[in-house]
Amino acid sequence: MNRYGKLFNISIYGESHQESMGIIIDGIIPGTFIDKKKIKEDLALRRPKEDFETKRIEEDEFVIKSGIKNDYATGAPLFVEIKNNKFSSESYDKYQNIPRPGTPDLVAKQKYYGFNDYRGSGHFSGRITALIVIAGSIAKMMLPFTFSNKIKQVGLEKNESNFDNILKETKNKKDSIGGIIELKVSNMISGLGSPFFEKLNSKIAEILFSIPAVKGVDFGIGFAGVSLFGSEYNDPIINLENKTKTNNSGGINGGISNGNDILINCFIKPISSIGIKQKTYNILKNKMDDLIIDGNHDSSIIKRVGIVLESALAICLMDQYLIYKAYAKK
Amino acid sequence: MNRYGKLFNISIYGESHQESMGIIIDGIIPGTFIDKKKIKEDLALRRPKEDFETKRIEEDEFVIKSGIKNDYATGAPLFVEIKNNKFSSESYDKYQNIPRPGTPDLVAKQKYYGFNDYRGSGHFSGRITALIVIAGSIAKMMLPFTFSNKIKQVGLEKNESNFDNILKETKNKKDSIGGIIELKVSNMISGLGSPFFEKLNSKIAEILFSIPAVKGVDFGIGFAGVSLFGSEYNDPIINLENKTKTNNSGGINGGISNGNDILINCFIKPISSIGIKQKTYNILKNKMDDLIIDGNHDSSIIKRVGIVLESALAICLMDQYLIYKAYAKK
Amino acid sequence: MNRYGKLFNISIYGESHQESMGIIIDGIIPGTFIDKKKIKEDLALRRPKEDFETKRIEEDEFVIKSGIKNDYATGAPLFVEIKNNKFSSESYDKYQNIPRPGTPDLVAKQKYYGFNDYRGSGHFSGRITALIVIAGSIAKMMLPFTFSNKIKQVGLEKNESNFDNILKETKNKKDSIGGIIELKVSNMISGLGSPFFEKLNSKIAEILFSIPAVKGVDFGIGFAGVSLFGSEYNDPIINLENKTKTNNSGGINGGISNGNDILINCFIKPISSIGIKQKTYNILKNKMDDLIIDGNHDSSIIKRVGIVLESALAICLMDQYLIYKAYAKK
Amino acid sequence: MNRYGKLFNISIYGESHQESMGIIIDGIIPGTFIDKKKIKEDLALRRPKEDFETKRIEEDEFVIKSGIKNDYATGAPLFVEIKNNKFSSESYDKYQNIPRPGTPDLVAKQKYYGFNDYRGSGHFSGRITALIVIAGSIAKMMLPFTFSNKIKQVGLEKNESNFDNILKETKNKKDSIGGIIELKVSNMISGLGSPFFEKLNSKIAEILFSIPAVKGVDFGIGFAGVSLFGSEYNDPIINLENKTKTNNSGGINGGISNGNDILINCFIKPISSIGIKQKTYNILKNKMDDLIIDGNHDSSIIKRVGIVLESALAICLMDQYLIYKAYAKK
Repeated sequence: MNRYGKLFNISIYGESHQESMGIIIDGIIPGTFIDKKKIKEDLALRRPKEDFETKRIEEDEFVIKSGIKNDYATGAPLFVEIKNNKFSSESYDKYQNIPRPGTPDLVAKQKYYGFNDYRGSGHFSGRITALIVIAGSIAKMMLPFTFSNKIKQVGLEKNESNFDNILKETKNKKDSIGGIIELKVSNMISGLGSPFFEKLNSKIAEILFSIPAVKGVDFGIGFAGVSLFGSEYNDPIINLENKTKTNNSGGINGGISNGNDILINCFIKPISSIGIKQKTYNILKNKMDDLIIDGNHDSSIIKRVGIVLESALAICLMDQYLIYKAYAKK
Repeated sequence: MNRYGKLFNISIYGESHQESMGIIIDGIIPGTFIDKKKIKEDLALRRPKEDFETKRIEEDEFVIKSGIKNDYATGAPLFVEIKNNKFSSESYDKYQNIPRPGTPDLVAKQKYYGFNDYRGSGHFSGRITALIVIAGSIAKMMLPFTFSNKIKQVGLEKNESNFDNILKETKNKKDSIGGIIELKVSNMISGLGSPFFEKLNSKIAEILFSIPAVKGVDFGIGFAGVSLFGSEYNDPIINLENKTKTNNSGGINGGISNGNDILINCFIKPISSIGIKQKTYNILKNKMDDLIIDGNHDSSIIKRVGIVLESALAICLMDQYLIYKAYAKK
Repeated sequence: MNRYGKLFNISIYGESHQESMGIIIDGIIPGTFIDKKKIKEDLALRRPKEDFETKRIEEDEFVIKSGIKNDYATGAPLFVEIKNNKFSSESYDKYQNIPRPGTPDLVAKQKYYGFNDYRGSGHFSGRITALIVIAGSIAKMMLPFTFSNKIKQVGLEKNESNFDNILKETKNKKDSIGGIIELKVSNMISGLGSPFFEKLNSKIAEILFSIPAVKGVDFGIGFAGVSLFGSEYNDPIINLENKTKTNNSGGINGGISNGNDILINCFIKPISSIGIKQKTYNILKNKMDDLIIDGNHDSSIIKRVGIVLESALAICLMDQYLIYKAYAKK
Repeated sequence: MNRYGKLFNISIYGESHQESMGIIIDGIIPGTFIDKKKIKEDLALRRPKEDFETKRIEEDEFVIKSGIKNDYATGAPLFVEIKNNKFSSESYDKYQNIPRPGTPDLVAKQKYYGFNDYRGSGHFSGRITALIVIAGSIAKMMLPFTFSNKIKQVGLEKNESNFDNILKETKNKKDSIGGIIELKVSNMISGLGSPFFEKLNSKIAEILFSIPAVKGVDFGIGFAGVSLFGSEYNDPIINLENKTKTNNSGGINGGISNGNDILINCFIKPISSIGIKQKTYNILKNKMDDLIIDGNHDSSIIKRVGIVLESALAICLMDQYLIYKAYAKK
């Protein structure tokens, strides 16, 4: 299902090689100034910039076709459309019979009885995340919180100055590499999230895992906290505003934001489409076979995915913020 | 909000020191045999067994008060109640002014304007997870999949034969320790989960993060996959049933189950309530203060939480399975 | 599915002859005073009082087992249970083979593959509406609006002083009769309800039609407005607060409350279980047959259903009120 | 909120004078043939045809921009866009200060803090119902049921041959008139709809009341059943397929379809915009004032709204049908 959210809710559509993709954004507070310049800036962060990233030009030129008047939200659903550019689709026919390892090629064929539009990976294309960026950008226009993201790791490398070299080397080898993105929300308030099933961690993880390539999410110190004893892990509270000395819990206790920075790590898997020869199952030959995936591939989406994750997080927090407001005492 | 699921849906209530906790389970296929013995077995796995675990006796005696007739599901919502035992609540008054680090003491006081029933941690008590075990047990009675869970790590220790020693030592130090649980679902089918926002990873992570103490979730090789190149990470497909040679993706591609085992790791943080003296904020004194938490504490929930996580996963998959059936060709 | 509401949400269970029925009420604003006396008064309005009403004694003694502390809502889900009294169930076995016309006897048997607990009409029993009254009573404790209901018609009779006579006569004939209930909400505010699919009419009608025996719902002048021209039907606005001279629209324009009284009519069908001999299909004999339904039947629920409908309406408006608050400017 | 449905779900956007309106349709069974010709035919039924209907030309030319390949549904969300034609918007400025009785002019201004795009009635325009027709048309392509609708009454007139005369006369008087539409679904199956809150009546009424101008909904004999005793109202069952001799219940018992025809009546109020001089509140003058609404108005939407209601009903039944399939035994 392609919709998200209870009060700030979005619905998306899009397949890579169809005419366009788009998003309906509902629940925008009437009168919100929709800053198109800010949306463009956020979208720019998602586009490949370096020469070791994909060569495909994605214009991401968006048109808001309803829901604003003189750049202010009308309160009716806002609709944004992005036209798709037409690329050659030939190679994708091939993958219907020789599915690319790590991709949904085969699983999608089965689920959709072969009717899915697999060209450009169809509905599974990373292109769709441009829509998430737009909605997140608008969410941030309404939220009093401050969002940021950074690359924490590329492969096993943690030193930022080496990231580009690793990415280039990997590209030269026609291989790909994963990494870890850290998301941070500052100027948070206490009280977002509701036990039992709408804990803030639950709602955040849910939307982050909807972003293609995310295969791990943890909060605060996360999995690394396995090395700590409780006496080390617990964050000592230092004032009535709930500020803590450490932030191992990532700003969330019992599923509720505690007013400290929200800290999240996301593991981004290596891109599946690589230039190196791989083994996979050939349906026509009914046996395993060699596969070479043509084209100019990214070595990683790690430099582009940060804004997507940040935007997804903002969408989630906007929904939670509206819910929080509903129960607030006047 | 205390409900989960679209077609297999559950609603829970419960605060530790109120009269009872309970769960309404709706969407059970009429005629399902409700095996109470199996539920008891699953609940037994959740109870403290070792002498280094909590001494509190939790009977978890459940009563099914509606929804079955001669042990078969009637199709009406099934209701299960577990009575609460009464423990001393005195110490909890204290924590309203000296909130325990790592717990929701302060955040809950703020969110609920001081009206929350904080005794025994109230609605945040781990006790509530017994209800999840019941619902998961029933879900497993309907699902054709096979579930299992195991402790992968206690602290940094990966050797199972040392787990108990570490837990005992930690208890002797009045400290606590976290760990990692691996969940596995075998005999899976291809096709569960729906892009974009109801990817299987999203729905699984959402419910797993609702379980108290879960602070990290990853799939397949997970965060450890950051050390692999794409050529190593990609799982080669070996047959038309989508079976793969490796399972780094944990049985999910593009948010859809691919028929291989689903593999999930959950990081369980160290228990917040420890016997060691800690620093926290004292509201009455308006400054930081020492805190000793009385009582007999677990050193970890790691030996008990596996069945809870497995059950949460089963609830999620049951919901997804019903959705899958809805779209299936006859 | 047995749950309702987005922010004020309830989940119910109950079958007539099982141990109990109950309701989980979530989304109560923490600190709300839960007035048990008021709940009892509302429940009393639902019970048969006259000698021409059913002789079954329904105590409706409710117990709140979680969610309150010193009579104030804790913010955790509130759970209320009502024990079922045990009645003879024998006659209901008979109706599995000779389904009573107008009841769900046969349709339930089909839908639940014969596993449904049909005793006392099971999950279809009107008894369950006591739970709606409890939730509605609590909703009214939080809402600034004023609710009322009245009988507008019993059969074709519109003169209130004749209602009891008609009901008695009908009972003497062992027959049943329907009627029309008018619901009114005063002290309304403008702004509840959201186009397109959550128009206030939509949400109100949805919950009212969940009450057994409701077979028609209209707003303001309703169906009778078919006799008016637009020039007569339109309600002239008389001030900036949107007050109108007439109220043919029943306080709702474009799916949004306009601040005038909300006015709703509900048609209540005659009770299906009557003492008169009827024709129906006999499954064992594989042909139509005579049926006499034993027992002491109401001639109508018209004198008891008003509070149920009013309560359902209150539940709906509480949910809409919280949603309204979420988008409100501070 | 502008989305509907659990498994067959739609999201819409649109304001009358913005660039376009559109609908995302999700949950289409992959491989469904999308018959554009049939959609066009359904849309044609919604357009004004007679000379006593509105003179505005609405082309309703729709474009499917995603979700189909060679006219078969891909399984990804289908998106349909309809361009808006540009009309003069001047008169609508006036109504911001002199709100038209019976319209949402004033209530929308309040709810959206004056930011709503009121031109052409904005998001409240009847134009949006073209999107409902498209989704309903696609729903009918998947459903095994047969839908029809007819005008039962125009004003108090029940004789079809007089309908056009009444509509013409009313138009000549610059007034408007309401009516009653009957919806019918044949070839139904038993088992759609789920107690307690998702009774089929509830879900049907919910979506029907989302259609502008619907102010009353009843099932089977509906409100007219107030004249019947139970012995007359009850529908005698005549065979094991649940077929009944009469159909006063409109094909639904206990909220579940019983396999007989579903019969529904909808009251359509007279159009609010009339040419006759009316009284309303003038905000600038701070007193009541005369209002003449310019333009060429319909005397009724009664001849166009049938297909819209039928389509809304089909959307609802498609969602319920998928839910029904989910629980079905294989």
